Amino acid sequence: MGRTSDAREKILGAAQSLIELRGYSALGVAEICKAAGVPKGSFYYFFESKEALALAVIDEHWTGQRAAWTRILTGDAPPLQRLRRLLEETEAEQRVGKQSCGTVSGCLFGNLSLELSNQTEAIRSRLQQIFDAQVDMVDAVVVEARQRGEVAVADTREAARSVVAQLEGQVMFAKLYNNTDRLGPLWPNCLALLGGRPTQEAVAGV
Amino acid sequence: MGRTSDAREKILGAAQSLIELRGYSALGVAEICKAAGVPKGSFYYFFESKEALALAVIDEHWTGQRAAWTRILTGDAPPLQRLRRLLEETEAEQRVGKQSCGTVSGCLFGNLSLELSNQTEAIRSRLQQIFDAQVDMVDAVVVEARQRGEVAVADTREAARSVVAQLEGQVMFAKLYNNTDRLGPLWPNCLALLGGRPTQEAVAGV
Repeated sequence: MGRTSDAREKILGAAQSLIELRGYSALGVAEICKAAGVPKGSFYYFFESKEALALAVIDEHWTGQRAAWTRILTGDAPPLQRLRRLLEETEAEQRVGKQSCGTVSGCLFGNLSLELSNQTEAIRSRLQQIFDAQVDMVDAVVVEARQRGEVAVADTREAARSVVAQLEGQVMFAKLYNNTDRLGPLWPNCLALLGGRPTQEAVAGV
Repeated sequence: MGRTSDAREKILGAAQSLIELRGYSALGVAEICKAAGVPKGSFYYFFESKEALALAVIDEHWTGQRAAWTRILTGDAPPLQRLRRLLEETEAEQRVGKQSCGTVSGCLFGNLSLELSNQTEAIRSRLQQIFDAQVDMVDAVVVEARQRGEVAVADTREAARSVVAQLEGQVMFAKLYNNTDRLGPLWPNCLALLGGRPTQEAVAGV
């Protein structure tokens, strides 16, 4: 990778860290460039505005997260076991984040939803697409679980929305209380929302 | 009320509207004073900093919301019926807000939790107290419902936390999608989280 690509990656990395720590509105381009260790001129070479940078940070983060969700949610394990693993890996990721920087950073998409959704249509629209995609992925697993008679929900999409909403709500509290133990009840709550009748393996998380 | 009290109220009202619309970080004191129609000098007469203003906005909003939650959650109606009413009134309030200003403003406390909890300890601590109080209030109702054999939860406080997390998660999506219909499933979800066996009256919401 050439130097220019490095600069773009450095800006993206610094911006994501700073946004997770302090939100988007409070940041200035100069500060992002300083943290990235690149001259301010580089910024406008790669990004036409701070909003364009925010969209790039969102896309970059979603590319990684979508790959992880796909890996976890589409394996050969029974559907509820995969869903449980998604919640456990989310908790583990937040725990590792806290260990490395001292604070629970929460969900980048949730943070930006509450900070920015009434301010920029481009960001609102991108975040909607991402949460729609998350709901689609959970929905597919819930449909499978229902076919196996392991959950009892009339509307699988609504149920998937509730699971993602529960995840966002609990991650918010993990961030506010700076305590990842808040994420412990995610799986039993998810199961309750789905009217779950898990198999023994799903319960054991094997 | 004298002129000075009016100015304080005007600043608080303008700040709450602006924070709900655009978040806290993006706001400047000059803009708040302009929206409030008060000279900038007044601001520092009443508030020593923008953070002090944010705390006052939070306290003012919580004073009103706590009174509403107390009224709803401590009446003579059966406990699950009161809980259902809380969720329905929350939905109605967001709907009225959207009708009046075009956008779903969401939950001021949730918004500020995600925007500011890693930035100012004073605000984090105040928001923690508020969510703790909300969980206490819901917990008391869940305890009552359990005594009546209407819910099946081992840990009522954990269950209350899940209900408040579900509320925050769904309100986040109502804000992101600018659609209060997202709040429709709150009551069935709440019941599922509580392992609810509601009485007929609670189901009918009478």
